[in-house]
Amino acid sequence: MRRMHRKFWVGAAIAAGVVVLNTAPAVAQDGGVSPESVVLDNLWVLVAAVLVFIMQAGFGMVEAGMTRAKNVGNIMAKNLADMCVGALAFFAVGYGIAYGTDAGSLLGTDTFFLSGAELGFSAEGGLSMYTDFFFQVVFAATAVTIASGAMAERTKMSAYLVFSFFMTAVIYPVVVHSFWSGEGLLADLAIGDAKFGDFAGSTIVHSTGGWAAMMGAIFLGPRIGKYDRNGRPRTMPGHSVAFVVVGVLVLWFGWFGFNAGSELAADDVVMRAAVTTMLAAAAGGVTAAAVVWLRSGHLDVAMTGNGVLAGLVGITAGTATMTPVGAVLAGAVAGVIVVASVAFFDRVRIDDPVGAISVHGVCGLWGTLAVGLFARYGDGFVATDNAGLFYGGGFDQLLVQFIGAALVFVWVAATTGILFAVIKHTVGLRVPPEVEVSGLDIFEHGQPGYVFRATENGSESAEAVVGATSNGSHNGAGHLNAEAGALED
Amino acid sequence: MRRMHRKFWVGAAIAAGVVVLNTAPAVAQDGGVSPESVVLDNLWVLVAAVLVFIMQAGFGMVEAGMTRAKNVGNIMAKNLADMCVGALAFFAVGYGIAYGTDAGSLLGTDTFFLSGAELGFSAEGGLSMYTDFFFQVVFAATAVTIASGAMAERTKMSAYLVFSFFMTAVIYPVVVHSFWSGEGLLADLAIGDAKFGDFAGSTIVHSTGGWAAMMGAIFLGPRIGKYDRNGRPRTMPGHSVAFVVVGVLVLWFGWFGFNAGSELAADDVVMRAAVTTMLAAAAGGVTAAAVVWLRSGHLDVAMTGNGVLAGLVGITAGTATMTPVGAVLAGAVAGVIVVASVAFFDRVRIDDPVGAISVHGVCGLWGTLAVGLFARYGDGFVATDNAGLFYGGGFDQLLVQFIGAALVFVWVAATTGILFAVIKHTVGLRVPPEVEVSGLDIFEHGQPGYVFRATENGSESAEAVVGATSNGSHNGAGHLNAEAGALED
Amino acid sequence: MRRMHRKFWVGAAIAAGVVVLNTAPAVAQDGGVSPESVVLDNLWVLVAAVLVFIMQAGFGMVEAGMTRAKNVGNIMAKNLADMCVGALAFFAVGYGIAYGTDAGSLLGTDTFFLSGAELGFSAEGGLSMYTDFFFQVVFAATAVTIASGAMAERTKMSAYLVFSFFMTAVIYPVVVHSFWSGEGLLADLAIGDAKFGDFAGSTIVHSTGGWAAMMGAIFLGPRIGKYDRNGRPRTMPGHSVAFVVVGVLVLWFGWFGFNAGSELAADDVVMRAAVTTMLAAAAGGVTAAAVVWLRSGHLDVAMTGNGVLAGLVGITAGTATMTPVGAVLAGAVAGVIVVASVAFFDRVRIDDPVGAISVHGVCGLWGTLAVGLFARYGDGFVATDNAGLFYGGGFDQLLVQFIGAALVFVWVAATTGILFAVIKHTVGLRVPPEVEVSGLDIFEHGQPGYVFRATENGSESAEAVVGATSNGSHNGAGHLNAEAGALED
Repeated sequence: MRRMHRKFWVGAAIAAGVVVLNTAPAVAQDGGVSPESVVLDNLWVLVAAVLVFIMQAGFGMVEAGMTRAKNVGNIMAKNLADMCVGALAFFAVGYGIAYGTDAGSLLGTDTFFLSGAELGFSAEGGLSMYTDFFFQVVFAATAVTIASGAMAERTKMSAYLVFSFFMTAVIYPVVVHSFWSGEGLLADLAIGDAKFGDFAGSTIVHSTGGWAAMMGAIFLGPRIGKYDRNGRPRTMPGHSVAFVVVGVLVLWFGWFGFNAGSELAADDVVMRAAVTTMLAAAAGGVTAAAVVWLRSGHLDVAMTGNGVLAGLVGITAGTATMTPVGAVLAGAVAGVIVVASVAFFDRVRIDDPVGAISVHGVCGLWGTLAVGLFARYGDGFVATDNAGLFYGGGFDQLLVQFIGAALVFVWVAATTGILFAVIKHTVGLRVPPEVEVSGLDIFEHGQPGYVFRATENGSESAEAVVGATSNGSHNGAGHLNAEAGALED
Repeated sequence: MRRMHRKFWVGAAIAAGVVVLNTAPAVAQDGGVSPESVVLDNLWVLVAAVLVFIMQAGFGMVEAGMTRAKNVGNIMAKNLADMCVGALAFFAVGYGIAYGTDAGSLLGTDTFFLSGAELGFSAEGGLSMYTDFFFQVVFAATAVTIASGAMAERTKMSAYLVFSFFMTAVIYPVVVHSFWSGEGLLADLAIGDAKFGDFAGSTIVHSTGGWAAMMGAIFLGPRIGKYDRNGRPRTMPGHSVAFVVVGVLVLWFGWFGFNAGSELAADDVVMRAAVTTMLAAAAGGVTAAAVVWLRSGHLDVAMTGNGVLAGLVGITAGTATMTPVGAVLAGAVAGVIVVASVAFFDRVRIDDPVGAISVHGVCGLWGTLAVGLFARYGDGFVATDNAGLFYGGGFDQLLVQFIGAALVFVWVAATTGILFAVIKHTVGLRVPPEVEVSGLDIFEHGQPGYVFRATENGSESAEAVVGATSNGSHNGAGHLNAEAGALED
Repeated sequence: MRRMHRKFWVGAAIAAGVVVLNTAPAVAQDGGVSPESVVLDNLWVLVAAVLVFIMQAGFGMVEAGMTRAKNVGNIMAKNLADMCVGALAFFAVGYGIAYGTDAGSLLGTDTFFLSGAELGFSAEGGLSMYTDFFFQVVFAATAVTIASGAMAERTKMSAYLVFSFFMTAVIYPVVVHSFWSGEGLLADLAIGDAKFGDFAGSTIVHSTGGWAAMMGAIFLGPRIGKYDRNGRPRTMPGHSVAFVVVGVLVLWFGWFGFNAGSELAADDVVMRAAVTTMLAAAAGGVTAAAVVWLRSGHLDVAMTGNGVLAGLVGITAGTATMTPVGAVLAGAVAGVIVVASVAFFDRVRIDDPVGAISVHGVCGLWGTLAVGLFARYGDGFVATDNAGLFYGGGFDQLLVQFIGAALVFVWVAATTGILFAVIKHTVGLRVPPEVEVSGLDIFEHGQPGYVFRATENGSESAEAVVGATSNGSHNGAGHLNAEAGALED
């Protein structure tokens, strides 16, 4: 009969301010933490990581929904590949770079292939290497998969795989090492008392992915048909709003693991992080929807979804430092920013089919800066309470946040720029125009993403599929899909 | 090597009845609960709430699958909006009404905007306000989103948003306050020893949503084409059975958090609640399928899905009071009821495209009454063991269950009736007929839900989308999509 | 501020090898385990079971995506039915057979209908019967649902339901009893020190399902159109690659519960199991993709998905016995095997639309044998460290693995063979050819799986659906579905 007590407790706690349980791990008699406490810490982080894992499905659905039916298999393949290639690359190389012992704060140099991992938990508490790796590897997969959206509908599969490998093996791990390893440039970055803070990765994960996405989109150039004769951007609607919304909800679901799991322990901060994550996402959705509605008179479903994601990215750095009201503000601003940013990148001819640069890159920057504005509580990175400008903390925190974010921008833009340049001149970055027009599914994957027809004998029929008939569609017929007919116009 | 012990233990426990660990939280030396115990309680409820969250995706898929392709974006928009608007409304107002301190048992009057929430856990145990809010807010979103299904395919988006706000801000919170706050009308409701019981919300959440759905459907009137010249209902099949089934499974998945999480603590009741939830859902699916099969000779997939949901709603009130066999019976009856109820509402011209009134309203009522029949164990609300009629408890429990459910019916029907009446005469409740015929996606959201065709230049093509040609489909085209144009070649 | 400690700890633990917390449950003063420890064990297994549950949705999506649109409702119905029928059959009969007390090691004979289950946890630790049942029942549903893929597109619904019932009530539980109950043939199977090991069910669950699938496919015969005049297999592409990939990711997600939950306790083995599961899946995806790419020049998305699943099945037996590197190898080999195996079954005219026999049956066998090659650690079943051939353990472990797998093959092939033979000659196993050609959705379920057209008055139109037009329009029409025919009227 627990439920009846709730009201009592809430009232009592508020009235008396009696909140006595310490959030530090219980100290057992031998000076370490209690066995239950350390198991629970590790188990919670494991469960959180599993939640983060399913974000790959969310990314896949959002990206597929926002792009055209003729590329759905390709989009999905890239998301699946990110997880496969990413897990192996991060296992072999990336995790060691990120969290191995280093000589001089630049790169970790051991724990490659998880060497040194053992069963058991430390009596000092903390995560086992297995737990830690498991949580970090799903973050790595997230960072890389962000780029797949911005590069959608025109990138060669082989080129993407090369990018995916280097991103998870080197580029992202170096960023992580510089901060979350506890040593390195970003970890040491401070202006007076103000230390750079990014609790769950607005910069470390999302901007890293977002700036890589931007470089990819720049090197690729816009999709055929994205701009008309006068250079004005055209709307290229995605093929399934249902996928977009379900994908957004799955991402939101996984984000509770992403943000609240980043405490890396089972304590009271977890619950507040979950609440700030919820509220910022909701606020981002509402403001993005409102801005578009005011301009167009419609509730744009996909943009509302992007507003939710913007709110999530916007709270990721500050999920443990902000109050609920601060989280609402951070998310609400993110929802406005994402709409403006999508329009901006459209205008400057950086074609990002799903808005990934805006959602992850730009709103990742915003989320990082938002800590400088709204930080109310220290969180282990942000060193003091009331560090945010609006809580009387002055401009130091805001400035250090900006510097940290700028350093990551420079690193990612430079390394992914080199990487894409090399790919472009070796394996090649972009599919031929005829492949792009027909859709990547047939040419890159040998099979259409959708087949809505089956002839009587069950054999496949080239006309019966989405995007199959680049070559002419002799009789025009039946194509679901219609790329067929369309191409003859 | 834990697995080998299992068999031993099961045998030993059965043989000797040795089940000695108390389910009450462990009492630490200082008189409070152990730190691990309170952290675990909060963490479990957090994880359960995350599971409940993903039910929004499940609702979205079920509703989209059961309705027509031309409204899929609208359905999804409403589900996404329910989470966004609902989270903010419940944060600002609803949670305070539901769980704030009250003067006279009617409304809570503080904790608006989570004021008073602090880190830390009480040494007395229980949930922190952050944990509690997080669990409650996803329940609120569930309650409101139920209505979106019954109101599908004809409701103005703006009208729905107004409804969604007031539902999560006021109407649902008042119901919650009256019961789960521990004070209020339903919490005090008793006949002799028999106290009203609704462990996880058959009435408090599902009937509340279901009766709101009913009022919405009544105020809206049936969809165009739902009834033929003679007033007989037509079948209007949904557009994707796959969505329906995946959505049902996602809801079932989330429901384990909904029901087992409602213990609000990590103890042995959780596991039994999960088992009863599993079995009732399975039984509801089987009986609904069987009834339809006997009548039509088909296994109706969507109705089987609704049977599963009926079973879930039917066990929600009694998940902690029933034995596994009781759960099977409660679910099995729910599966029969839902089939009859769907036919009934069809006949009385209350057009509910997805069966939400039957699943949530009627089976919520059934689940509440089922406690009066099958309650074997006390659960904190149900005060005594063997309170159910079939366990010798007499009619008191059944009667008090009925009164409680009736009171909620009156409150919800009255308040949502007023709300819908006001909306109807201000912003307007229903879209114009031409919008309804063409589908809401284009007119309310500026974009079709599905686009299976893209012309070479990437611009959208009015014929190439689902439901685009409200204006007459001049050339016979416009249906789904593209097949149209293609076939005329 | 936990995150900063991480790096320190990892370094310290590696340097000093200080890993002192025992993985055994903490012993409380009364000689039992601590209450928090036993609650945590039960709670973790519950959460893991919930993850396993959602695998039903993953199976549904993978199978639907790999088959044709005209059967999507049927595929989904079978998956939903597996959970409903399976839960009730396992509750009534199966669990008792699997884990009840037995007289002579063949069958359990009590705990039918969960009789004997009580609240409370044992002071000795271990799982309550509710927890245990909940974990086992989702495994049972997994075992049976595997077969639905191989039997897709031609099996009578009623026949499938009979199969599903006997599989979860008897055939699978007997396998479980022989091993995981701790007594029975497989539990006693040993060659010297080498004992049969199958931690999470490569043989017990996946091969059991896979061999049943094989027998089903054999008894059914190939789909119409699968083989051309010369007996050469045709490719029959599935209708949605998006479903396949999302389904694979959902299965992967759930598999963390499947494998790591099989520890049946919350301890350090859980985290390593999660890591090996992650890596094997990734490796399986990469090698399957690579093999096909080398042969065809394409990245085959569906086969990559099957490679991931093959990797998952391949690590299931050895998830707790292998090092991360061992897991990569086990998964990589599985990815190659699945490609070869799919081609093999195609060649020998056993038509398996989704590759279930290869993924679950053959790779289940491989995963079981892989323990004999790569077992580095004992896991409670595998009795000693370094039992694998490549760790100097000799051939004993490999041999005992083979014998165990072979025994299960014999049991399953024999019993399902009898079962399918009986079904074939009573209710009938296969739908009539005209139903198969038109699709099962209309005839078995009375409704098409997809409806992408709605006439203006909203009434249903028989032509407007996927798979409705068996009776003609073979030429040129019929594509996507039939809107075609409708529009020509």
